[in-house]
Amino acid sequence: MEVKIRKRKIVLVGTGFVGMSFAYSLLSEKGINELVLIDMNKDKAIGEQMDLSDGLPYADSKMTIKAGDYEECADADIVVITAGAAQKPGQTRLELVGINARITKDVATQVRMSGFSGILVVASNPVDIMTYVAYRASGLPKEQVIGSGTILDTARLRYNISKRLGIAPSNVHAYIMGEHGDSSFVPWIHCYLGCKHLLEYIDEEDNLTLEDLQNIYLEVRNAAYEIIDRKKATYYGIGLALKRLISCLLNDEKAILTVSTYQNNEYGREGYYIGTPAVVGSNGVEKIIKLPLNEMDQNKFNHSFDTLKQTIEENLQEVLADLD
Amino acid sequence: MEVKIRKRKIVLVGTGFVGMSFAYSLLSEKGINELVLIDMNKDKAIGEQMDLSDGLPYADSKMTIKAGDYEECADADIVVITAGAAQKPGQTRLELVGINARITKDVATQVRMSGFSGILVVASNPVDIMTYVAYRASGLPKEQVIGSGTILDTARLRYNISKRLGIAPSNVHAYIMGEHGDSSFVPWIHCYLGCKHLLEYIDEEDNLTLEDLQNIYLEVRNAAYEIIDRKKATYYGIGLALKRLISCLLNDEKAILTVSTYQNNEYGREGYYIGTPAVVGSNGVEKIIKLPLNEMDQNKFNHSFDTLKQTIEENLQEVLADLD
Amino acid sequence: MEVKIRKRKIVLVGTGFVGMSFAYSLLSEKGINELVLIDMNKDKAIGEQMDLSDGLPYADSKMTIKAGDYEECADADIVVITAGAAQKPGQTRLELVGINARITKDVATQVRMSGFSGILVVASNPVDIMTYVAYRASGLPKEQVIGSGTILDTARLRYNISKRLGIAPSNVHAYIMGEHGDSSFVPWIHCYLGCKHLLEYIDEEDNLTLEDLQNIYLEVRNAAYEIIDRKKATYYGIGLALKRLISCLLNDEKAILTVSTYQNNEYGREGYYIGTPAVVGSNGVEKIIKLPLNEMDQNKFNHSFDTLKQTIEENLQEVLADLD
Amino acid sequence: MEVKIRKRKIVLVGTGFVGMSFAYSLLSEKGINELVLIDMNKDKAIGEQMDLSDGLPYADSKMTIKAGDYEECADADIVVITAGAAQKPGQTRLELVGINARITKDVATQVRMSGFSGILVVASNPVDIMTYVAYRASGLPKEQVIGSGTILDTARLRYNISKRLGIAPSNVHAYIMGEHGDSSFVPWIHCYLGCKHLLEYIDEEDNLTLEDLQNIYLEVRNAAYEIIDRKKATYYGIGLALKRLISCLLNDEKAILTVSTYQNNEYGREGYYIGTPAVVGSNGVEKIIKLPLNEMDQNKFNHSFDTLKQTIEENLQEVLADLD
Repeated sequence: MEVKIRKRKIVLVGTGFVGMSFAYSLLSEKGINELVLIDMNKDKAIGEQMDLSDGLPYADSKMTIKAGDYEECADADIVVITAGAAQKPGQTRLELVGINARITKDVATQVRMSGFSGILVVASNPVDIMTYVAYRASGLPKEQVIGSGTILDTARLRYNISKRLGIAPSNVHAYIMGEHGDSSFVPWIHCYLGCKHLLEYIDEEDNLTLEDLQNIYLEVRNAAYEIIDRKKATYYGIGLALKRLISCLLNDEKAILTVSTYQNNEYGREGYYIGTPAVVGSNGVEKIIKLPLNEMDQNKFNHSFDTLKQTIEENLQEVLADLD
Repeated sequence: MEVKIRKRKIVLVGTGFVGMSFAYSLLSEKGINELVLIDMNKDKAIGEQMDLSDGLPYADSKMTIKAGDYEECADADIVVITAGAAQKPGQTRLELVGINARITKDVATQVRMSGFSGILVVASNPVDIMTYVAYRASGLPKEQVIGSGTILDTARLRYNISKRLGIAPSNVHAYIMGEHGDSSFVPWIHCYLGCKHLLEYIDEEDNLTLEDLQNIYLEVRNAAYEIIDRKKATYYGIGLALKRLISCLLNDEKAILTVSTYQNNEYGREGYYIGTPAVVGSNGVEKIIKLPLNEMDQNKFNHSFDTLKQTIEENLQEVLADLD
Repeated sequence: MEVKIRKRKIVLVGTGFVGMSFAYSLLSEKGINELVLIDMNKDKAIGEQMDLSDGLPYADSKMTIKAGDYEECADADIVVITAGAAQKPGQTRLELVGINARITKDVATQVRMSGFSGILVVASNPVDIMTYVAYRASGLPKEQVIGSGTILDTARLRYNISKRLGIAPSNVHAYIMGEHGDSSFVPWIHCYLGCKHLLEYIDEEDNLTLEDLQNIYLEVRNAAYEIIDRKKATYYGIGLALKRLISCLLNDEKAILTVSTYQNNEYGREGYYIGTPAVVGSNGVEKIIKLPLNEMDQNKFNHSFDTLKQTIEENLQEVLADLD
Repeated sequence: MEVKIRKRKIVLVGTGFVGMSFAYSLLSEKGINELVLIDMNKDKAIGEQMDLSDGLPYADSKMTIKAGDYEECADADIVVITAGAAQKPGQTRLELVGINARITKDVATQVRMSGFSGILVVASNPVDIMTYVAYRASGLPKEQVIGSGTILDTARLRYNISKRLGIAPSNVHAYIMGEHGDSSFVPWIHCYLGCKHLLEYIDEEDNLTLEDLQNIYLEVRNAAYEIIDRKKATYYGIGLALKRLISCLLNDEKAILTVSTYQNNEYGREGYYIGTPAVVGSNGVEKIIKLPLNEMDQNKFNHSFDTLKQTIEENLQEVLADLD
């Protein structure tokens, strides 16, 4: 008998802590019918499926969870890639590039071979570069391949400003743009608290300065390192950030998120992926929001983009050679 | 550009208080992309759409709400019919039969003409009869046409027993079976509190008797009348009960609900719809749960079924004449 | 045995459609232990309690619902007043003032006599005036008495802009300020789409003008009348807006909402209640967000405030005479 | 300014994977205002707090999360203890007893010294023994100290039966009783599918036998070992089971859960903790549900209880000596 209700299926590739924290968070999300876990280590995927499934009787979600293979991607709505070597203490995100590009290429190629035609979300690091690799290997249109970009960085920034000012994070409107990494930046003249300029607010209400905000940004930029020092890895924050992104896609929210997205000169550069505010709906990235950057911020953006571009062009020619 | 994520669409026919209480409750349910309101009074449907939509910025749901026509059913997953004249003070559910059968036939015919092939849920009263009429007029397979049956009665029973015993309603396992109306009954020997026989529990723990339980049932049976006396109509309870049923369908829960479902001799009768426990998943009613009724309960079931059958055969020949 | 877990209790005064739509929406909200319904018509309150309770077995909320008296306010966390005559077709909100002021005074006085010391939320219309009356009669500090103000108007504005631009309402940052009524206004220079100036966005992306936005505002201002024409009353939107406000209070969110709040010269006027953006947490209104209004908007604010002040001073001297 | 809304505070002692999976799951639960993380390794607690907090901007919960000390327990509603050495591959739960009893005694003593008077939940293994130790060291009444018992085992059983039969886990009513460990058992004559005897159902509908069910139980009993083999530890299932238990307490659900609870001869044994179905509300364990066990099941219960008792009496005299 044919199924009458349209079912939604998500495939997760990579059952490390980031992937599993994301998967676990889906147990409180309604509207997903099936979750498939894929991992090079099949036994690991099975163990994770068992552990997650045990929670189902006490979860809001009624989904089916299974460990599976790439053929499961054929009729999936969304495939999320978190596979890749993890960032180690002291290691920069860019140092991971060679190893993870090969993994990502391999995963995206297998996803392509399944016949997948949905939305591909990439969270492997360095994420802007891995998203580009996945785009090239997947054969999907640009707007259907999305990196987690700076959505976690932006969440951290909003949370830290929120805590400092005593106002809800939902009312802190600010973006971390650029590479998910050391060359990211905050265009402070485009930050708001509710509908009030953030710079005006802090000046009038708290005697804070732009420098204080910049220090908050620096804390945020170092947060991953601080957390890794203390617990070896970071995964809960990114897990919920991925859940937020997937919820946007499933519910066709058309919400603005600082995902890593293909640039077409919206900010003066093109041809690669980087974090900019973009409208995310059920078709993937529907539009990039163009903020008029001041000269300093534009320089930061250019530097961030060019760093990524250079890394790809200098290191990944071989990996990308046979694609397209 | 083609939409990549499978979207879910629900159409509600009838924007009276029952229908709208159901629709309003969907604003807290994720996983539905579109809700369409249809009413004979198009202006009413537009007004309701406007009022509901105003709540969206503060709701969990991200769905699109519109007022529309039957052609919207073509690609819907679920159509819910609540259209029909309401039960008036003093009026029995059966007295509504003539008027509402014509309305239901008309609605289901228009749904059929749209090419709809999903799950049709009927809540118009008398619901067992209207579900049968909708089944005949819709051209859909039996298992895809489901009446709200005694799901509200069962909820009331569970709530009232729960309150009396001081145990959560989620642990009161009991069914009201039969017609959603005066001939319904509770098979008390099949009732449990957690995994303990209810009759044993009340005897040991509370010095209650079967008669006390039977009085709770009588209160439940009269609840609609009591509520109608005080607020002219009842709609919040049924609104949430319908939300529960829709959630079962969307999430393919395969949960047991006392819906009104087509009988194939599971309880010794066949050919019409009546409330029995049944497994509900994304294909509609997947299976009727067969309880071994004792003689008294079987007689009540037979009486309830035969009353419905007789009502249909004596009153609705003309309405049903040109169907199939 | 003493209860160990701190319980939360909400009392609703007024079981009309607005109050009950709010109450019904609480069935999907966790973290509330008890809801008490109070109405002049005690039978109505009982009927509503019965209808609502029937939904509990299928609801996320596990709260206890009862119909009760003002003594229930003594240990409540929040009391919500929706009592009052409803706005009739053709009637302005201000025309209701005399009748509803007496009702509100009476209700708030009884709440005071119970010994209530929590947060008092007022949604009776004209809401800015009723909130002032409730403040005077309740004996509570200013920040603990909050009117629903323009939170619904603001939601409608955000929704309508969202629909026009194809961007999520959660990314439309805009306020309707002033009276919840005809003298309200939108300070357009303080509106944003994500972190981009709304006026810039519409100019660049959609060829829309300020006049187009102003027309959206006019639609919003007329929405209540349009809905009332079609369905006699409006209640779902305000029901969810009230739920949002209560959720802010319970969760100490410190979110910015355009509630009706006591003015202390933040916008150049003082001594009465009017809708301005304010930070709402578990202590009530914690701070008013001060936007630098341009001359036109400041004039609109002054006019709106002065209209409310004049209405109170000219019409409610007698009602207010014996308070304090 | 005094806070008006009653706030709820949870303290978690132990930020290993079980504790943190529980904490992470709370980010989707409303109605909790504060979560405090305590760990012997303070840096670990800080790292976990940072990682969790990063998710707050994208979470339903609006709670405050901090790393803290035992003095935070003073005004907490609930303290959850997950501290303890983890079960290693090949190790039985009972082998952990000596090490973990000392840790639990120390933690519970510090909780006691804070002046805590709420509900103490214990999840450290072997859980029945640790709950007893915590009870003795905490100075709290028996009913306020609750072990996670067999709630996860029961969830696993329900899930596995559900999957085999194609019926929702919410309709599988069955308990694993006894020790959370190898001597647990299922009283099969007290298991139901909806309101139908499970043994009858499987016989009629699926040609399954009691032996098939018993094999499902054996799989469940081995599940922890199977998962540990594949992913080194198990934590997601127990994380959600703990969330369920906490939700019961906060919402005063009075739901029946197979927690580890102090025995007063309800099943013929007394003086220690073991898993039996019990009613859990805001006062803790309100009542044990007494099932009439057949001789075989009673023997299993006795054996399970006596094993626990013997372990305590033979191994923990010294640890317990100075308590009371």
